[in-house]
Amino acid sequence: MRRGHNLLAVGDYNQAVVLDVIRRAPLGLSRVEIASDTGLSAQTVSNVTRRLLDTGLVREGGKLIVGPGKPRTLLQLVTTSRYAVGVHLDPTVVTYALLDLAGDVVADHRTLTPSAADPDTVIAVMAEEVRALLAREGVAPERVLGVGIAAPGPLDSAQGILLDPPLLEGWQHVPLREALARATGFPVVLEKDVTAAAVAELWVDSDEDRDNFAFFYYGTGIGIGLVVDHDVLRGASDNAGDMGHLMVQADGPVCGCGRRGCVGDLVVPYRLVQRAVTAGVLGPTASVDTPLDGPAEHIDFDETDRRFTEFAAAAGRGDAGAVAICEEAATHIARALVSVVNLLDIDHVVCGGPFWRRIAPVLRERIEALVAGDPALIPRHPVAVESSTIGEDVAAVGAGCLVLDQTLSPRPSALLIAG
Amino acid sequence: MRRGHNLLAVGDYNQAVVLDVIRRAPLGLSRVEIASDTGLSAQTVSNVTRRLLDTGLVREGGKLIVGPGKPRTLLQLVTTSRYAVGVHLDPTVVTYALLDLAGDVVADHRTLTPSAADPDTVIAVMAEEVRALLAREGVAPERVLGVGIAAPGPLDSAQGILLDPPLLEGWQHVPLREALARATGFPVVLEKDVTAAAVAELWVDSDEDRDNFAFFYYGTGIGIGLVVDHDVLRGASDNAGDMGHLMVQADGPVCGCGRRGCVGDLVVPYRLVQRAVTAGVLGPTASVDTPLDGPAEHIDFDETDRRFTEFAAAAGRGDAGAVAICEEAATHIARALVSVVNLLDIDHVVCGGPFWRRIAPVLRERIEALVAGDPALIPRHPVAVESSTIGEDVAAVGAGCLVLDQTLSPRPSALLIAG
Repeated sequence: MRRGHNLLAVGDYNQAVVLDVIRRAPLGLSRVEIASDTGLSAQTVSNVTRRLLDTGLVREGGKLIVGPGKPRTLLQLVTTSRYAVGVHLDPTVVTYALLDLAGDVVADHRTLTPSAADPDTVIAVMAEEVRALLAREGVAPERVLGVGIAAPGPLDSAQGILLDPPLLEGWQHVPLREALARATGFPVVLEKDVTAAAVAELWVDSDEDRDNFAFFYYGTGIGIGLVVDHDVLRGASDNAGDMGHLMVQADGPVCGCGRRGCVGDLVVPYRLVQRAVTAGVLGPTASVDTPLDGPAEHIDFDETDRRFTEFAAAAGRGDAGAVAICEEAATHIARALVSVVNLLDIDHVVCGGPFWRRIAPVLRERIEALVAGDPALIPRHPVAVESSTIGEDVAAVGAGCLVLDQTLSPRPSALLIAG
Repeated sequence: MRRGHNLLAVGDYNQAVVLDVIRRAPLGLSRVEIASDTGLSAQTVSNVTRRLLDTGLVREGGKLIVGPGKPRTLLQLVTTSRYAVGVHLDPTVVTYALLDLAGDVVADHRTLTPSAADPDTVIAVMAEEVRALLAREGVAPERVLGVGIAAPGPLDSAQGILLDPPLLEGWQHVPLREALARATGFPVVLEKDVTAAAVAELWVDSDEDRDNFAFFYYGTGIGIGLVVDHDVLRGASDNAGDMGHLMVQADGPVCGCGRRGCVGDLVVPYRLVQRAVTAGVLGPTASVDTPLDGPAEHIDFDETDRRFTEFAAAAGRGDAGAVAICEEAATHIARALVSVVNLLDIDHVVCGGPFWRRIAPVLRERIEALVAGDPALIPRHPVAVESSTIGEDVAAVGAGCLVLDQTLSPRPSALLIAG
């Protein structure tokens, strides 16, 4: 992460340690408890909390009475003292989320991704949307810790560059992190979309036991964020989570990789819409009548988005043709998830992303049942398939959480960065 | 892990912490260095090291001269003071490895798995082999920390039970851990074979940078052990690492799961032998001429093992038919590994297991080239495909390492167990 002056303003390892224990205590913590929870000396806690009070990150709240001694003053996080912005660039839609210091979503906003525009223009529009969002919510720039951006992979995380996301035409080797930092004036964190979604789920989820799960991301493309031992799995180059080329149908259409039956090619929203048009479930349109086994180039994503809403509605009211297409998609998704469960022995799949909520009522239960009944499933425990409670914002929220995480979570590496 | 008296004899968290730093220092460590490395007080280090000297786990070695002070006595691990036994139950072969306290293999031994015998008989034979191995090496039972056993999944790790390993006929719901503990008199750790292999690789490997890799296990069945952040990934029920049902050939034969082209069914040794017999590369035999798309039941594994050696030799000398079969197998394995690399963004695959070494000269380079050239590969970095340096013993060595690991590696959970 680029660490700008805003981040360094709340930097310092001990400070992060103290902030971290305070934010995890809904009612706040006294200095005595902070010292006992962190192992820091009373003097250090006193110094650090004075600084946190001065900068307005915490405030003195109620009193705690323990035994016959003096009541202890509780220190609480001032959730409105700092903010983070999360942005999610999907080929169809750009989502913005404003998070307060507690990670709660204060405001969000969606715009269609201008597919004809070049990256520079899209980035300029993003910066303008971020500015407008902050202005609408009355958040001054100096209270913004940074911007997190979630984008499709593969990406070069060290350089902050999108390499060649298959569904974002014209976005080859775009230095998104630098460009967005320049355009907004904020430090920027870049993360792969599926990983950001998993981060959001991990941050927001109150289920402390959920240390291992997969996040099935259903956007313009699909992917799978992986959480192992309560940490997201990023891999050697931060590009983990690609499941699109898992083969799930022996006699399926030919994928861009040259093989048949890759799940990504079979179940993405524009393929379901194409199939619905071909089957006569939806009326024909100029833009989505490309051949079913053709490449994904030049697909009109705005139009697909509208038609997908129609399609999901048809399936929801029980239209036989639409349901049949969903059943086939559920079979393919379940098959891919079984491969993931077999590899990682995961007992929990959370589903979300820009297109999930619309189709979830038709897909979720079917997928869960198909996974449970798959003769190829190796582990002998149930696999829960749930919808994310965060909704369509999930990757944007995750990108914002990453900014909070970099600021609030103490980690040894921060000591190195801080020098 | 069942913690018997032998394990508890060297238990205690501080002791494990001190032993851990001593065993990582090839020349040994002085008490001053131990205190500074562990954060323990000089008094605690003095107490703990006295106990370690008394029990013979460490000894006083050379002297270290630092500045004008008194020379410091170096404490070294007595690698021959304790031992661990690793056993690997593969449907074709049972492997035994005797490890000293440093994890070095002192002796190993292989026997064919008696496929006609019931589990009780096989377990009794195992216990006899363990006793004979210890007797041959002159290791008294009181110096044995325990036995680790690696076995095919799926297993119930909490109960120590093999559930229904697909290639071990008659081994349904066998309480292997209890039975082997009873038969040998030692505490027993049970681990899935592919995970044990990954543990061995992690333990023996001197490459400190190798924090993330996959272990491609090539035994009577195949599997993939996963290492993430220098720790093996076990999953929700310790059954992670199954890759057999990854679909890799659209028009492949029908697998036991009912679908076509599962990699496990395509590339296991008995399938290659069957194909070689059908193609006339090997002469016919009574036992391996089952139909190519038939189930794996009643396969004569001893015979397959011998024929596989013939087959690998034919491929090694360039027999066109054998090489063609290997090329096809390499394609399938590479395809499955690409799925794993895409999911986990792994840049390193280590290959091993009972059948790997024989076929490695023909397969390894081909697999590496096929992975690199696969159009479905998402991460943009090279993926190294290497043979394990440990060889055919790898899962047995890993099982032994698990016993050492439980004894020597400090972990907070040990505090809870020690209660």
